[in-house]
Amino acid sequence: MMNLAPYIDHSALKADTTAEDIRKLCREAAEHGFASVCVNSSRVKLAAELLRGAAPKVCAVVGFPLGAASSAAKAFEAQKAAEDGASEIDMVINIGRLKDGDDEAVTNDVSAVVEAVPGCAVKVIIETALLTDEEKIRACRAAEAAGAHFVKTSTGFSKAGATEADVRLMRASVGAGMKIKASGGINSADFALRLIEAGADRIGASKSVDICGGGS
Amino acid sequence: MMNLAPYIDHSALKADTTAEDIRKLCREAAEHGFASVCVNSSRVKLAAELLRGAAPKVCAVVGFPLGAASSAAKAFEAQKAAEDGASEIDMVINIGRLKDGDDEAVTNDVSAVVEAVPGCAVKVIIETALLTDEEKIRACRAAEAAGAHFVKTSTGFSKAGATEADVRLMRASVGAGMKIKASGGINSADFALRLIEAGADRIGASKSVDICGGGS
Repeated sequence: MMNLAPYIDHSALKADTTAEDIRKLCREAAEHGFASVCVNSSRVKLAAELLRGAAPKVCAVVGFPLGAASSAAKAFEAQKAAEDGASEIDMVINIGRLKDGDDEAVTNDVSAVVEAVPGCAVKVIIETALLTDEEKIRACRAAEAAGAHFVKTSTGFSKAGATEADVRLMRASVGAGMKIKASGGINSADFALRLIEAGADRIGASKSVDICGGGS
Repeated sequence: MMNLAPYIDHSALKADTTAEDIRKLCREAAEHGFASVCVNSSRVKLAAELLRGAAPKVCAVVGFPLGAASSAAKAFEAQKAAEDGASEIDMVINIGRLKDGDDEAVTNDVSAVVEAVPGCAVKVIIETALLTDEEKIRACRAAEAAGAHFVKTSTGFSKAGATEADVRLMRASVGAGMKIKASGGINSADFALRLIEAGADRIGASKSVDICGGGS
């Protein structure tokens, strides 16, 4: 069976995540060889200390999970997270502005983050559960125009998570240079594999150890 | 019947809130005489423009709704919101740090915001649904030690919202100089009144027009 670990951003993003949870997350990421640990920005420093010299990267979420913070605040949060040791940034688009039809504002919001963290991979969460297919395409194009590196389906905090259909739509909406991250509700190796077959380059999950067959 | 309008922070905080939603929110706040409109930080500028010269204040949420952003990011977001026209800031505590038992970190996180916006009232959301009673008391005391002006029950994005018991507990946990805001799931005048009787000085709601008897 295919080794899924290198695809996985091992995530612990709940409001009440403790330092002990972060220690477990980082230990598991190093043991299994996950791509990264994905944490809220107040936990980046701890995760970066724990993973110093280890393979997994530290990924910080920004403007999370609503995406409705000001662009300046998102850019600042990203820059601070990079200083604290993050090398990947998962930001949420301004969904309200997309609904307003102001795609330029959506692009500028992503650009502010991309420009604030020149050394980081930036993944742009479009929160598919709240969007029509037409809006998903516009969101992908806005992220691509801003120079982001990935588009990502979901925060895991909205009504629904990743679907194969959305991954296929997102894959078809951006150029070959842009990658796709599927996230939200991914609880099994079977589903993760189907999302990868649909075009996902990265999988965001909290049940990562179970997905990789290491669960009890 | 008691006029509830001056108690109400009229709120529109969903990820997909549009500019048109904000215009309606501000129109209703001015018509009914609500205390403020409560919006995400990317909508502060618009709300402040719409309410220029009107009585309702603009209240911005910060580090919302998880409270897990870095302290520096919360302070920056608050400062930018104040520059954009907010005079009240509703921030979420770092719940994970409270669970870690690091009350000093919780206080320092609130202090960073309080110090960043000297002209603003700062309300500190403790997210009661995720806390034990003992943790609620510790959270209230941490907010008070940081010089905040209000403690607030809920974001409206977690498992549950305000209860009379929590308002009473929070009222008993802080000095008379500190105010209480109840929020989350407040849909009727009757419930709002009971929360005020329990000790709430402010009510956060999106159904504010219904609560004030102006609904259709």
